[in-house]
Amino acid sequence: MTSMLVDNIALLVTNDALHGSLTAERSAAAVVIEHGLVAWVGDAVDAPAADERIDADGRCVIPGFVDSHSHLVFAGDRADEFEHRMTGQAYAAGGIRRTVAATRAATDADLLANAGRLVAEMRAQGTTTVEIKSGYGLSVADEERSVAIARRLTAETTYLGAHVVPPEFTDDPAGYVELVTGEMLAACAPHARWIDVFCETGAFDEDQARAILRAGQAVGLGARMHAGQLGVSGGVRLAVELGAASVDHCTFLADADVDALAAGDTVATLLPGVEFSTRQPYPDARRLIDAGVTVAIATDCNPGSSFTSSMPFCIAVAVRDLRMSPAEALWAATAGGARSLWRDDVGVIAVGKRADLVLLDAPSYVHLAYRPGVPLVHRVITG
Amino acid sequence: MTSMLVDNIALLVTNDALHGSLTAERSAAAVVIEHGLVAWVGDAVDAPAADERIDADGRCVIPGFVDSHSHLVFAGDRADEFEHRMTGQAYAAGGIRRTVAATRAATDADLLANAGRLVAEMRAQGTTTVEIKSGYGLSVADEERSVAIARRLTAETTYLGAHVVPPEFTDDPAGYVELVTGEMLAACAPHARWIDVFCETGAFDEDQARAILRAGQAVGLGARMHAGQLGVSGGVRLAVELGAASVDHCTFLADADVDALAAGDTVATLLPGVEFSTRQPYPDARRLIDAGVTVAIATDCNPGSSFTSSMPFCIAVAVRDLRMSPAEALWAATAGGARSLWRDDVGVIAVGKRADLVLLDAPSYVHLAYRPGVPLVHRVITG
Ligand SMILES: [Zn+2]
Ligand SMILES: [Zn+2]
Repeated sequence: MTSMLVDNIALLVTNDALHGSLTAERSAAAVVIEHGLVAWVGDAVDAPAADERIDADGRCVIPGFVDSHSHLVFAGDRADEFEHRMTGQAYAAGGIRRTVAATRAATDADLLANAGRLVAEMRAQGTTTVEIKSGYGLSVADEERSVAIARRLTAETTYLGAHVVPPEFTDDPAGYVELVTGEMLAACAPHARWIDVFCETGAFDEDQARAILRAGQAVGLGARMHAGQLGVSGGVRLAVELGAASVDHCTFLADADVDALAAGDTVATLLPGVEFSTRQPYPDARRLIDAGVTVAIATDCNPGSSFTSSMPFCIAVAVRDLRMSPAEALWAATAGGARSLWRDDVGVIAVGKRADLVLLDAPSYVHLAYRPGVPLVHRVITG
Repeated sequence: MTSMLVDNIALLVTNDALHGSLTAERSAAAVVIEHGLVAWVGDAVDAPAADERIDADGRCVIPGFVDSHSHLVFAGDRADEFEHRMTGQAYAAGGIRRTVAATRAATDADLLANAGRLVAEMRAQGTTTVEIKSGYGLSVADEERSVAIARRLTAETTYLGAHVVPPEFTDDPAGYVELVTGEMLAACAPHARWIDVFCETGAFDEDQARAILRAGQAVGLGARMHAGQLGVSGGVRLAVELGAASVDHCTFLADADVDALAAGDTVATLLPGVEFSTRQPYPDARRLIDAGVTVAIATDCNPGSSFTSSMPFCIAVAVRDLRMSPAEALWAATAGGARSLWRDDVGVIAVGKRADLVLLDAPSYVHLAYRPGVPLVHRVITG
């Protein structure tokens, strides 16, 4: 493969801590790419020669977005449920179960095509690394194929058998936990990097969540957790205690949760699309950042509570409603997501890292929030 | 020109009141276009033959968006001011005046190129009719060239010399009103269809606004007004009294304002991008709709208070935060905008009307709110 020079960059966001500030910006910069990796970063005037050249034409260049939380393996949509929710009408509960029924009835090919379409949609909006969870199968065979399908689209696959208790185990949740930690785990682990659990009233309690994550860790999976979406619970502290890479939602937090996150290594991943699409109150990013917690932003793309695939949209909402600065929101959507996936090769533009670059139709990343809803991704370069 | 058949439409939104409900939807529909106009609408099975065919492939088709409020003739941006506002820092006031200075310093060619780029950006997001205001020139020559530049991009041009009082008239606002209603009006009217005034504390008061709009009406311009953005004022009732086509913002309304709007013919145009980008409280669309007021949605695209060009984004915010139903928001962004521009040939898909159609990458227009931030516009057909 030949080398490629990207120059005429008005503003380059490297997220390279060696260079100082949060987003580590440099102006009048250039990047050289070789073998899919960043080979050189510096002032455009010093740029070495390369075989090909991309003229950024005064654009801002940022690292590709790292969307560390999505549920893309499913069938059907729930537009009707969304419409009912937005117009304040009563509607039948059991949303996730509707998607479970549709997913179980779908062919592998349909599930792969739907997930692949969403990954392509994400890519066009600047996402170059995406985590994909199972969780709409909830049987051994359907979870296994869900994780296997996700694995065809990304290395960051998450086994979420513990999304909700499926209808056939309503009277035997303990039996379902046994399945999730036993036969289902054995079937899914070969395709998965992560294990996740929805620790919330109505889903799984702390004891169940602990058993599930420990079982996954015992077979080499990293731990993630959904917690604090609908109310304060012990899930957040449990995630830190278990050394989870990330605890996601964090909308409702006790002071002790914030303290635990600040003292531990678990990233708090905020999902503003969920609050936008459910009219729930937004999480308080300032409280977390000011306490020293590492914060990521992700879409939670799923057909029930947040069907956006747009990291730029999540950044805009994070700035307006989560009160993050544009720089904090961009960092959280790139380097923050990478941290939450224990990845140091993405979310940053630095020598030796993956060459995932996004050229924005804007002179600054501030425009991602300043120009909400506008498709500003001009070009995506992936390693 | 040949005829064109668009078929395989899963859901067609016609906004044709003859067909009943607000958005007047029909499934399994087809549209035939001839000479830039809609020649036939009906069930796909009955579709007549045509020279060309576009297969909508199960997509939803809606009328092109009518963005009835934008300020596209300007130079520079104010990303720094936005960033300061979002991060709660103090910043120097006088935002509009910064854009006035940059606009006055720009060449005609630069102003046209910038506005043209924004119109193209709007078009790619489904906007097929756009109103463009002057208002960053504020001298006879600069307002005249601003309206003339707008006229090269749209038929819906608005003379907004009364945007703010420019620095050189700070001590003589009455003298500026005299200019706006005299020499400046005479220079701008040949290029304009509309006259507009910003009736708000710090801009123009009711007496000034009345004089300005009456002067425009006297030379054949239709009246529009900015009012109720920052507080309740008499501007809204004045707009109705003067028979203005539209009064825009309507964020702060007295009961008497709502009553006047309901009794009159003036459209209330809501601009959710402004509240999103300034963290102001959102207007109460339900109060207006429930009172029987005709509501439109527009972007207010401008570099200060709302730099979005995206009608889909405004629809998503209108549904979440203005509490409009997805159908109400779509109607307001198409037929509502058309009403606010006294246009009956756009905002609707019906025989004899302009063939402005948008094909969505979605089975329903509900997805415009259900999938916020996602670029869902697959193809734009314009008469
Ligand atoms: Zn989730
Ligand atoms: Zn305006």
